[in-house]
Amino acid sequence: MCQFRTVMCYYDGMGETFESGECEVAIVFADSSKALITGTKAIMNMCETLVGFWDDAEFMPQGMRPPRPSDIDFQKKRLFSGASMLRDRILKQARVLPNNIIDVSAFMESYIDMALMEECAKELADRFSQLRPTKILTVATTGLVIAAPMAVLLQVPLVYARKQRTMVMSDYHMATYASRTQNMNKELVVSKGHLSADDRVLIVDDFLSAGSCQDALLRIISDAGAKPIGIAVLVEKAYEKGRMFLSGYNLPVESLAAVVSVDDGRINLEE
Amino acid sequence: MCQFRTVMCYYDGMGETFESGECEVAIVFADSSKALITGTKAIMNMCETLVGFWDDAEFMPQGMRPPRPSDIDFQKKRLFSGASMLRDRILKQARVLPNNIIDVSAFMESYIDMALMEECAKELADRFSQLRPTKILTVATTGLVIAAPMAVLLQVPLVYARKQRTMVMSDYHMATYASRTQNMNKELVVSKGHLSADDRVLIVDDFLSAGSCQDALLRIISDAGAKPIGIAVLVEKAYEKGRMFLSGYNLPVESLAAVVSVDDGRINLEE
Repeated sequence: MCQFRTVMCYYDGMGETFESGECEVAIVFADSSKALITGTKAIMNMCETLVGFWDDAEFMPQGMRPPRPSDIDFQKKRLFSGASMLRDRILKQARVLPNNIIDVSAFMESYIDMALMEECAKELADRFSQLRPTKILTVATTGLVIAAPMAVLLQVPLVYARKQRTMVMSDYHMATYASRTQNMNKELVVSKGHLSADDRVLIVDDFLSAGSCQDALLRIISDAGAKPIGIAVLVEKAYEKGRMFLSGYNLPVESLAAVVSVDDGRINLEE
Repeated sequence: MCQFRTVMCYYDGMGETFESGECEVAIVFADSSKALITGTKAIMNMCETLVGFWDDAEFMPQGMRPPRPSDIDFQKKRLFSGASMLRDRILKQARVLPNNIIDVSAFMESYIDMALMEECAKELADRFSQLRPTKILTVATTGLVIAAPMAVLLQVPLVYARKQRTMVMSDYHMATYASRTQNMNKELVVSKGHLSADDRVLIVDDFLSAGSCQDALLRIISDAGAKPIGIAVLVEKAYEKGRMFLSGYNLPVESLAAVVSVDDGRINLEE
């Protein structure tokens, strides 16, 4: 049921391996009558993955030099295919509606290509794993499609803000913001107790537009006394300048695709 | 970032392995100075996993007898820990609100333990993988927490029904149902084109209560000309008899935990 690009270990148990871990194994090879990749290439790929995740060159097998940082950046880009797959789908399947609303319902909204989301989650999770988030905060419903697989990869709980109170909520944090897309003021609510003062919170969402929604989430995080560590989104509408609006928070903002303009129903992505 | 219980192969590529596949490798062992499991046990576990997923005893290494079906059932139960983890959390963390509403917001609603959801998804996906679904249909927002990881495991797209139309929807299927929990009539909408006549649709949701919501989804599937293949839920409120209400559809209904009664704020689970 799973597909592996690189496989390192036999693991049986439920231990926490995110923060630290030991692994003492010799690298061995299966006698395979069908190979899609050479042995050397396999080892290099595996080491790239490990170096990428743990930022540690000790995984390099003896006799192979540790890669220079520029190599790693280059290798990382090759390791992940989420951003290029997403850009491709936006150009092929996103539609521009009146008021320049970008309709992505064919692949990442009410119809979700979860294989695509999984690849995107790998790439975004990798960009923030070294900042060691303890929780992911997103907004229901559309943010969940990327936040859920990222929470699995980063091994942290997922909290989502709702746009309305439910009857199970008694005590909650609330922040309001203006939605341009829907041309109205909106409320976001998060139950108290879902965020705590020692949390390092990564904000994850499908879109970054003018940044007012993320700003509301940041106010909720501040209200809870927690620490925000960054903002990860699938698609950034660069022309709405959300990144600039949020710059005062001095947080890393990462997107996998940036729309620079929408002209006559045509979507132009940043190169 | 991943944890493996059993590892079979080195795989590089994007091929479809869900429906069929060939794998010709000798089983080899890493020279490990730390082992959490014996070699024989490791092979048996791996074979159980493969037999469990593909229902095929050919994976047994030579000299080891194929397990009897009763063994497999027993082994399968041990393979998955989702149901027992979920039952444990319900007993420890679910609260009973007025009108006997079960509040699960501490672990599978607005605060989501995605590691728990991942384990539950493995167990539910396994129960339906042999029915070869081509799509998962759920209801926003709360159904997504289990439907998203199941879609990744079953390698199928995920479609969710919304409780209100959005501005990107032009042509859609709609069905209404009565929600007891919220004491009102509700609408579910799914864009036309998200389901097609050759789809085999697995309905996935967080709760099965009286079954009226799942019945609405089944009417939408029928409206689209697609074929429903089953219903998978995390928690079944057995006392609301949803299973009986839906029995006319003659579909497999699987839940990981069944609440038989709620007395004085105490939740009683089926043994």
